[in-house]
Amino acid sequence: MFVDLNSDLGESFGSWKMGNDEQILPVVSSANIACGFHAGDPLGILQTLKQAVQLNVCIGAHVAYPDLVGFGRRNMDLSRDELIADVLYQISALDGLAKVAGSTVKYVKPHGALYNTIAKDAVQAEAVIAAIKMYNPSLVLVALAGSNLVKQARQAGLTVVSEAFADRAYNRDGSLVSRRLEGAVLHDADFVAQRVVSMLKNGGVESIDGIFTPIQADTICLHGDTAGALEMSAAIKAELLKNDIQIRSFCA
Amino acid sequence: MFVDLNSDLGESFGSWKMGNDEQILPVVSSANIACGFHAGDPLGILQTLKQAVQLNVCIGAHVAYPDLVGFGRRNMDLSRDELIADVLYQISALDGLAKVAGSTVKYVKPHGALYNTIAKDAVQAEAVIAAIKMYNPSLVLVALAGSNLVKQARQAGLTVVSEAFADRAYNRDGSLVSRRLEGAVLHDADFVAQRVVSMLKNGGVESIDGIFTPIQADTICLHGDTAGALEMSAAIKAELLKNDIQIRSFCA
Amino acid sequence: MFVDLNSDLGESFGSWKMGNDEQILPVVSSANIACGFHAGDPLGILQTLKQAVQLNVCIGAHVAYPDLVGFGRRNMDLSRDELIADVLYQISALDGLAKVAGSTVKYVKPHGALYNTIAKDAVQAEAVIAAIKMYNPSLVLVALAGSNLVKQARQAGLTVVSEAFADRAYNRDGSLVSRRLEGAVLHDADFVAQRVVSMLKNGGVESIDGIFTPIQADTICLHGDTAGALEMSAAIKAELLKNDIQIRSFCA
Amino acid sequence: MFVDLNSDLGESFGSWKMGNDEQILPVVSSANIACGFHAGDPLGILQTLKQAVQLNVCIGAHVAYPDLVGFGRRNMDLSRDELIADVLYQISALDGLAKVAGSTVKYVKPHGALYNTIAKDAVQAEAVIAAIKMYNPSLVLVALAGSNLVKQARQAGLTVVSEAFADRAYNRDGSLVSRRLEGAVLHDADFVAQRVVSMLKNGGVESIDGIFTPIQADTICLHGDTAGALEMSAAIKAELLKNDIQIRSFCA
Repeated sequence: MFVDLNSDLGESFGSWKMGNDEQILPVVSSANIACGFHAGDPLGILQTLKQAVQLNVCIGAHVAYPDLVGFGRRNMDLSRDELIADVLYQISALDGLAKVAGSTVKYVKPHGALYNTIAKDAVQAEAVIAAIKMYNPSLVLVALAGSNLVKQARQAGLTVVSEAFADRAYNRDGSLVSRRLEGAVLHDADFVAQRVVSMLKNGGVESIDGIFTPIQADTICLHGDTAGALEMSAAIKAELLKNDIQIRSFCA
Repeated sequence: MFVDLNSDLGESFGSWKMGNDEQILPVVSSANIACGFHAGDPLGILQTLKQAVQLNVCIGAHVAYPDLVGFGRRNMDLSRDELIADVLYQISALDGLAKVAGSTVKYVKPHGALYNTIAKDAVQAEAVIAAIKMYNPSLVLVALAGSNLVKQARQAGLTVVSEAFADRAYNRDGSLVSRRLEGAVLHDADFVAQRVVSMLKNGGVESIDGIFTPIQADTICLHGDTAGALEMSAAIKAELLKNDIQIRSFCA
Repeated sequence: MFVDLNSDLGESFGSWKMGNDEQILPVVSSANIACGFHAGDPLGILQTLKQAVQLNVCIGAHVAYPDLVGFGRRNMDLSRDELIADVLYQISALDGLAKVAGSTVKYVKPHGALYNTIAKDAVQAEAVIAAIKMYNPSLVLVALAGSNLVKQARQAGLTVVSEAFADRAYNRDGSLVSRRLEGAVLHDADFVAQRVVSMLKNGGVESIDGIFTPIQADTICLHGDTAGALEMSAAIKAELLKNDIQIRSFCA
Repeated sequence: MFVDLNSDLGESFGSWKMGNDEQILPVVSSANIACGFHAGDPLGILQTLKQAVQLNVCIGAHVAYPDLVGFGRRNMDLSRDELIADVLYQISALDGLAKVAGSTVKYVKPHGALYNTIAKDAVQAEAVIAAIKMYNPSLVLVALAGSNLVKQARQAGLTVVSEAFADRAYNRDGSLVSRRLEGAVLHDADFVAQRVVSMLKNGGVESIDGIFTPIQADTICLHGDTAGALEMSAAIKAELLKNDIQIRSFCA
């Protein structure tokens, strides 16, 4: 048995630091690296890419809406052509820098509001899928497990990896419990670590209201931006290894 | 005999239009295309790239300082690492979009303040040269004819193309007469066209104070952003052809 | 009888020019001036403000979403606090520059996607209204004639001016015909000019399907960004004066 | 005896946090608040302003070059008109937000590269001085103690406050030792605190090479962006109070 662990990286911007790239990179097998639209300046991106290459971590383009001040977390209704061009520009920029660092972009994971929107909005999803196919149809798409996007992108011919969240509660339909609700985010590192193992072994988790809910978890999203998050990520990795679940990128 | 004609393209930004890409592209053999730092949004860049590919015009990355509101025309003292990463990011973004459009970036021409600064400032020049070599050492660098940059970049192993300006007066040392001085910019289309031919046939022009001044003109910069500029560009092209001087990109 | 004529101004950005501020300013009584979020750099804004003050044109803050590349024409789901602070920042910046130019901001007209969104979305509308009241409750709000916003803002205590569009077709419920539909935009200057007069004299216009539709037109929006638009604006002004309808700002 | 303590605040940007505004505000008497050009988004600026007003801290506009990614720390050669308009825009935006928060801007302190440049470059200095006079000639300018700017701004009619740095070594001519040199930055909180008191009592400090150097310290710049910096700021405040030196803003 194996699973991929991914995390958002390269999210500093100039003098503003975010995350602990150096500490989370040794934990994960895949790095979603910011491309400059929601975060990431060229120099910071390049440094994170070099560290990822050194640790043999698979590189993904963390593409986003063009909204630095909103950190890509606010919906924007871009036209199809705008969204295609924005996604192409971001993958291109990251791929070129990745080559300089000694690797290439292997997958695309949309960020923030774009991630959530295309999980269910087939129109914007189609634009993102089209952009990936134009750039390189062998790039993998990371999508929310159980979302419409998984089917839509597979039907369009892309390889899709289903993503689960270690520290988030699920509704019984497999969607994430909104962060605005009580209990949406789980904080106990040991509990979360065991839950990830159980999710992989049983193919699902208990929903927030106590019903077994199937979740296809090809990759698990880890957070690395706080001390607690780092600790939780380390606990998850340790628990996986203890249970003979290998951590392996889907890139390989 | 032959010469390359280049022009700055893709310099619109969202709703703001600049230049007449559709009208100048059929005139030139090389297109300096904005990369998003001084001008150019992803969608506009992609459209210009597609037109350039269709007309078989050679594609260059028009890299610049990160200064949209100043259009890359104001000096900025970036650190070496910042400048390298900024140049890499821009070449990468354009190259990826160019591939989608059916071609690749073949050369780099720094824009505006960066162009003028590295013509004489060996420190920033070194960073630009280093970035090009990291990305792809076979990319050509377009540099001001007679500048220190021409020598510096050749010594560093790059292929350099010397650029002359059709409508600018020259000092006797081969430098451009400052735009702030009377007579710096030439406006008569026929005179300018003949001057270009003479520059190529004689290997130089008469300086503003009447001395023959050698100018190595591998490529001539044309302007396409006004009606007069388009007319002048067409006149130059016609005069070159009349004098059996072929228009041919240095890319080929 | 009298009416106000308004137009969008100060929409250049650095080297990119938009509109003909110098030609449209003598036609209008109110100037919606960009504040830097969808368009307008500080120097260009200041120059437009000085011209407006010289011609005694009333100054309004043309506040927008923070989206330069999209020109404020794309919906964004800002939080209430973000939207309030963004509106306050823009009014403040323009008001300070207006004082230097010899006047002050007298009204607020939201731009583009924000204008359309708050015409019907009471949530974002409430944030814009709250921001105006925090800054200066005597500022006038320009809102789409017949929209929910007119009522909502009046109930909140603001002075509201209803805006009609000279060159747009109306549905029978008083809403604008979508630009995507045939006949949405009127192009005949004489017809449009007579229609404006008739709208003011009769309190409404014929809808696109031929039904008389009441429109409260306190101010008419003119376009000045093309030769045709300038000509149409001049025709409207001439027709109003011929019919003894005074052009007078609601500021006075 | 009394002195003002100032610190840079409001320097977060969207999701990126910088500094500890809540912890440093109770220590200082004057707050240099970012205006959005090198740092500061509208919502974050407004929150910092409200805290400053609550604690009765004097508010200054921390105006900067338009360079978010470079945090305003890179020289830019703006034209006089651009620099004037940029400074006016920033003071205006902050002043309007300050009014909403219950106060007004009382002084201007240029930030980063602009601060250092105008300390000696009379051309850019003149533009900053002109902008302040246009906006409100009673605004105070905070300038590097002993710099040309102090004289230039006083001759132009501005009230100038001389700023000294608690944790920086001085050359014998009163200039700051370059950060690139050994010993430029002092790290011992107690030593720095005593040095500040001695600077105020004796009218100067010992230079890095041991010569008494006069420094006019009307205000002392404190840093609050690290744990060590906060501790040093608290130590300075305590030492001042122990020596009966009152902490009092120059605004009052």
